Formats: sequence, C-alpha cells, structure tokens
Amino acid sequence: MPSSDPADGIDLGELAEWVAIPSISRDATPAVMRAAAEWLATRLHSIGGRVEDTAGHPVVRGEWLGVPGAPTVLVYGHYDVQPTGSPSEWTAPPFDLTVDADVLRGRGVSDDKGPVYLVTALIRGLMQRDGRLPLNVKVLIEGEEEIGSPHLAAYLHEHAGALAADLVISADGAMWRPTEPSLSTASKGLVTLSVVVTGADSDLHSGRYGGTVANPIHGLAQLLAGLHAADGTVAVPGFYDGIPVLTADRRADIGAVQFDEGAYADSLGVDGVFGEAGYTTLERLWERPTLEINGVEAGGKYTVIPHRATAHVSCRLVPGQDPDAVLRAISHHLRTQPLPGLQVAVDVDEARVPAYTIAPDHPAIRAATAALESVYPGEPVLLACIGGTLPASTLFEDVLGAKTLFFSFSTADENLHAPNEFLRTRRLAEGVRAWEQLWQLLADGPHRLAAAVEGRS
Amino acid sequence: MPSSDPADGIDLGELAEWVAIPSISRDATPAVMRAAAEWLATRLHSIGGRVEDTAGHPVVRGEWLGVPGAPTVLVYGHYDVQPTGSPSEWTAPPFDLTVDADVLRGRGVSDDKGPVYLVTALIRGLMQRDGRLPLNVKVLIEGEEEIGSPHLAAYLHEHAGALAADLVISADGAMWRPTEPSLSTASKGLVTLSVVVTGADSDLHSGRYGGTVANPIHGLAQLLAGLHAADGTVAVPGFYDGIPVLTADRRADIGAVQFDEGAYADSLGVDGVFGEAGYTTLERLWERPTLEINGVEAGGKYTVIPHRATAHVSCRLVPGQDPDAVLRAISHHLRTQPLPGLQVAVDVDEARVPAYTIAPDHPAIRAATAALESVYPGEPVLLACIGGTLPASTLFEDVLGAKTLFFSFSTADENLHAPNEFLRTRRLAEGVRAWEQLWQLLADGPHRLAAAVEGRS
Repeated sequence: MPSSDPADGIDLGELAEWVAIPSISRDATPAVMRAAAEWLATRLHSIGGRVEDTAGHPVVRGEWLGVPGAPTVLVYGHYDVQPTGSPSEWTAPPFDLTVDADVLRGRGVSDDKGPVYLVTALIRGLMQRDGRLPLNVKVLIEGEEEIGSPHLAAYLHEHAGALAADLVISADGAMWRPTEPSLSTASKGLVTLSVVVTGADSDLHSGRYGGTVANPIHGLAQLLAGLHAADGTVAVPGFYDGIPVLTADRRADIGAVQFDEGAYADSLGVDGVFGEAGYTTLERLWERPTLEINGVEAGGKYTVIPHRATAHVSCRLVPGQDPDAVLRAISHHLRTQPLPGLQVAVDVDEARVPAYTIAPDHPAIRAATAALESVYPGEPVLLACIGGTLPASTLFEDVLGAKTLFFSFSTADENLHAPNEFLRTRRLAEGVRAWEQLWQLLADGPHRLAAAVEGRS
Repeated sequence: MPSSDPADGIDLGELAEWVAIPSISRDATPAVMRAAAEWLATRLHSIGGRVEDTAGHPVVRGEWLGVPGAPTVLVYGHYDVQPTGSPSEWTAPPFDLTVDADVLRGRGVSDDKGPVYLVTALIRGLMQRDGRLPLNVKVLIEGEEEIGSPHLAAYLHEHAGALAADLVISADGAMWRPTEPSLSTASKGLVTLSVVVTGADSDLHSGRYGGTVANPIHGLAQLLAGLHAADGTVAVPGFYDGIPVLTADRRADIGAVQFDEGAYADSLGVDGVFGEAGYTTLERLWERPTLEINGVEAGGKYTVIPHRATAHVSCRLVPGQDPDAVLRAISHHLRTQPLPGLQVAVDVDEARVPAYTIAPDHPAIRAATAALESVYPGEPVLLACIGGTLPASTLFEDVLGAKTLFFSFSTADENLHAPNEFLRTRRLAEGVRAWEQLWQLLADGPHRLAAAVEGRS
C-alpha cells in the first residue's frame, strides 16, 4: 500500500548515486553529464522523464498534464554542479555523499541535486498514492546552470509551446538562513570577464632582467586595486548607473529584519563585515551590486618575471543595471589605465544576466508563504532576496511570459560553490511536504493560480 | 693517441643523458636528484668523483692535488635545475636535449649542466693527454642552487679543511650578452617571501555573501600595488637603506657601454623598457636592487570569494643592503597596511643572500680576462655584473676565505629559468679552451695566483 506521506519516498542511497556522478558543467565529459541526466530521467519515469539534446549539455524533461483547465507549472532546476576546488579542503571525497549527524555532505547536494531530487520523490509519491498530481506539471532540469545557462535560451525558444506554463517553480535558489523559512523575491544578475596583462614573450629570470622590464603582476595588481575605493565602493565610473535610489521605506523594512552582524561574521570566521560604504550589510547583500575578483593566476614561487598575469572578475547586478553597460564600463576602465611596457586584454564572457524580481504580492508568493507556514507552523516567513543569480528566470519571463517562484530547500550557508557543500537532511522531507502544499494551493486553494496559458500540449 | 684539444672530448649525446634526468631541486624525488649526481660523479672518475650526502640533496665531489706548492682552485657549479613551468610553452619536451641549428635546447642545459659538463670534459681531456692538471683542482657541484643553497653552508663548515682553496671558480653565472665576451665582478643578493591574505574560513559563494565580507584578492591587490610607486620605485620604506650613492665615475663607465635599448626591448617582445625612475636601464640592471612579485594564486574562474590569496615575492639586492633588514622592512610594510576584515601573514623564506663582489683588479679577473682574450681574439672583454644571485659565493668567502671568479659559458639571454632554455653549442668548446687557459695562467702565467692556503689535503 503506498505511503500517505510522499516524503517517505526519500531514499538517501538513491541521492548518493546521483551525487556520485561528478557532473561539473565546466569540466566534465559529455558522457558524465549525460549519465547524470539519464539518472534523473529514470527517476521521472512516471511522468515521461527523458533526456533531450541541446547545443550544450542535455536537459531532462517530463510532464503530466492530466487536469484540463487547471493551472500548469514548470518545475526548473539543474543537475550540473560547480568544480570542487582543491579536494584537500574537503573532509571527505567531494562526490561521496556522507551523512554527518543532521547534514548530507557532497558537491551538488545543496546546489541543486538535493532540491531537485525531493521534487522527483514528491512526484513518484503522489503518482503512487493518488495516481495523479494536483495540477499540470512540466519539468525542465538543465545541465548548464553553473556556467551561466548558455544554451537554455535557444532551447526555450525552440520548445516554447511545449514548455508554456502559468508559473515556473524553481527548485534552485535557497532559503536565506537556517533560523526561519524564507522566500526570495529577487535574484541578482551576473556578468563575468577575465583580464590578462602581458609583458615579455616569455617568463624572464628575475635577476638577469629585473629592473629593465615591467612585471605583468605589478600591472595587474594596480588594475585590480583600482577597481574599488578603500571604503569598498566600486571605483569603476558608470558601474552604479541606472540603480534606483534605495527608498526610506525599503531601508526601514530591511532595518527591521533581525540580523546579528557579529554572529554572522563569527560564523564565517572573519573579524567583521566589510562592504560598500553608506549601506548596511543586509542592504549591500540584497539591494546593492558587487564586483568581486574571483581568481588570480601568474607565475609561481620561483624567481621569474612572469610574462602573463590573469584575473577573473564577476559582478552581481541589481535591478536597473544593464549588464552590457556594466561590462563596457569595466572594460573601458581596465583598458585605459596607464601601464607602461605592458599589454592589457579584457575577455568578456558571453553570459550576461540582468537582475530578476517577482512582486511580493504575486499569487505565487502568497501561496508559497502559506505552504511554508503549513510546514513550519508558528515560524514567520521572511521575504528576502537572493544574492545568487538564476539566469533562467529572466529567460522564462522573456520567452515563456512566466514569472518564476524560487522554492528551494537548500539554505544559503550550506557552502554552495565551496568545499564541504552540505544540505540539512530534514530539508528534503520538509521540501516534499511544502511542494505538495504549494501545488494544492496553486490548484485550488485561496491563492489559486489563474490558468492563463492557452494551447499547451 | 689522446687528442691534443680537450674540447674534442665534448659529446652531446653524453650531455643529453644528463639533461634527461629532471633534477628539479624544488620538486624532484631524492632518487632523481641522486641519479643526476651519480651521473656527474661517474664523469669525474679520473679525479675521484663521488656523491656525498648533505642534509638536503647530495653534492658531487672530486679532487686532483698533484702539484704541491701550486695554487688550488675549487670548481663550483650545480646539477639541479629550475621547474619547467607549463610544458605547453616549450617547443619540445623540456628534458629532451634538442640540437637546433647552433643551439642546444633543454631545461638546465645553460643553467648549469652545460657549463659544468664542459669542465668535466676538460678534466678528462687533460688527464688523458697529460696525465695531470696544471694546478690543484677540487670540485664541488651542489644540487640546491635553484632553491637558495639551504644546506651548503653547513656542508662547507663541516668540510672546510678539505675544500680549502686559493680561489673558487664558478661554472655558474653567465656572460651578459652574446655580442662580446664578458666577466662578472658582482652578483646580486636574494631574499624571498610569500604573503598570504586570508578572509573567511572557506571560499564563499560570491552572490550569497558578496558585499558582506572582504575579498582576500582585493586586499592582496592593494598590498601588491603598494609595493611600487607608479614610476617603478620600490615604495617600501627602508628598502634602499645602506646603498652607496652611484658615483659619477661609475655612471660614466656604464654610460660608455654600447647598449641599444630599443633592440633590447624588441628582443624581449615588449614595447619598451621599464624600471626605477632616475636610473638608466643598465644602471638598474647592474647597480640597483629590485623587488619582483614572482607569482600570485587565488580562487579561479568561478564565482567565489576565495578565502585565501597568496603572492610570492623576491628581491635582488645590491652591496650595502642587509638581507635581514630588507625582509623586515617589507614584512612591516605589508603587515601594517589597513585591510579591514582580512588577515595578513608574511612567510619569510630561510635563504637570505647578500650581494657579492670581486674587485675588478683581482688577479683572478686579470687571468680570466687574458684567458678570454686568447679564446676570443680581437674581442674586448667587458666587465659586467650579474643580476642573478649565486649564494655560494658569499659562503665561500665567509667559510673558506676564498673569492669566487664567475667563469660560466652560458649567456644571460638563454631563457634561464624560463621555457625553451638553450645554450649556444659553440660555448662548450670555447669554454673548455678558456678554462684550460685560465688554469695555466693561474698556475704559472703573469697572473699567477698566490698559493696562500696552508694545510690542504
């Protein structure tokens, strides 16, 4: 007899199989990526799960459209993961899922395999128990989220009809912190670039040539130091263009959120917080853009003047900023600094994602709030913002005309993109129950979603 | 019948065997280092060549002391080599010696295996032809020159009696440029350190934490950019302390050296020369100290705020500078910059080598000049300085009381410490003939070296 609680279908051994497939979209072979996709498609068998090709890594699709006239949701997520960084910084091999007290640990378990897996468990549980889902459900899980979803736009355009939905529900995203349930009403945009400073034709002996030619690392350090003022403000002219002034009301709302800066700093192992002058930490996190140097590489611990020095830069954008304009401003700033004897090249990456927002009073936010309240009784639901970037949400709005609800059960402190990524084990069952509630509420609750999309197949 | 020209004993196949042993002192296994040492000891069989242990990589020793009352020279060199850097930047595998028109190419062929090999060929040739050498010869070839000779001092102290000599002749060093023979009367000192800037306990997602904590790369870039002024001057207070003012006479001597700055820049592939303001390029190369950032490493091309950023720094010192004082000045400068939310650690390396000089009118310089004139008739011998560092020369003076003559047949443009290191093939035979002349002149020519050391065994 099928269980009455679809959360009973969660099987950590099963999730471990998926985590064990190292689907690092930046580095993995096509065969590895396909294996991760096939694994997922098999788990979606009851709703026609299958792998479909794109110009890049494949996507996983599935759909159950058994309630004519009911709303249709498109479930989004990703099966690709970030590189691990140095395995020596992990307490266990990154792709061995370990269960350590109340947490699951492994690359991708929080971002985004765990949160996707719980939706598959829900679908299987509901189909076994009820033989149906509460509303029409389409599933689209991609394999390139961590590299900026470069082929998703083309895929959506090509399959816009088949993917049409009244709402996208993203299993990607994250609750802001573990102390209360939260929903995200915005995510930051993203642009990335690399800057390469070049000197001589090859590395030079630092003694035999030192003092006669410019050192690319010295030039790069000057460029990088010039990207910010000492007070943390981005020093690139034009970087902040287009951003609306932060209103007193919004500042008051943010100021009312309980937030212990000292505890936050302690939890990260830093002496104190730091960021753009003139804003509080939460204002900077939720409302202000950032420019971060993510990596630098040149020479090594040997006595050379290296011939090349490289830095990798990314910016998180807020509403009002134009990604192309930001890239132009940074490129111009970097290229026009005087560096005698050196050459500067700026390589702008293809992906450029604007910030995304969904209105706090959107029916989906209201339904999601109610769903969380049912799973976390007595805990007020916080409306927050995601500093992370979900490029797909902008695409869904542009191509499918559908807003995206971020409804993930990972939490932002779970070492996403870092060594020792983990997921709180309880979030899997909580997520299954919340997604079931959400679907019920969107189908026929007080926050029922209008079924506006015609001609869906 | 033995050849009358010891240079006939040069065998490139033999040299290729030695180059093929990748004796990178920084990285190689003890077995690899010992193999390189044993290879050399075998070639010194006729003078008792053998490998002796030290607290680090072993040394190769040998001696022939068959002319009582004649001067004794100690031949110095090294069998270790620099790391290769990325093999993709080499035109052929770094440890395959290739003969390309008039050059031999391979890691270590110029620095220092070729110049050491030619001395072994000379010794063998002279022993076969004459059954003797012109004077008493001791040989000490070490395996840690490229990492700052950390165990040489202890070895010299322990064997000071056995190694006593009237003059050290170094097969390490280099002619300044290929257009004329040259002798070096000075070499720069060397100190090295690493600076590590640390932020949070682990790498952080640049979206979920961006704007709230300081980025170690931003801090490192500030520190590194602050090490120099825009005009190339080292900006560390105290760095230049103790250096005598460059006299008008010395400036005039240097100004008289024919040197085409444009051609020099072209040969390196740079737009123009660059260095400390107020000095000419040759003044900077020969008379002024430098501070170079040799490497930087942090994060990568992924959207994190890395928790650590590291830079490797080295300084080439000139006479008057105290290595310890320079390290203290840099450490203090780096540690006292305000970097809110970040930690700065400075790891000072053990080796600290002061600059070294030998007087231009030292008998060894005069003998060496005559020896070069005999091998390069009609070409004036230039007295230059080595920007490179030969830590052993200071040790020989301190421990053995002997000055060091740099008598190498590599040339400074041969990609030492860089990809595609090479040696001009003709230098091997020229070197054999010049060393033979030098030994004759030191033994009984007009520049005969005084045999001052007593009690040598």
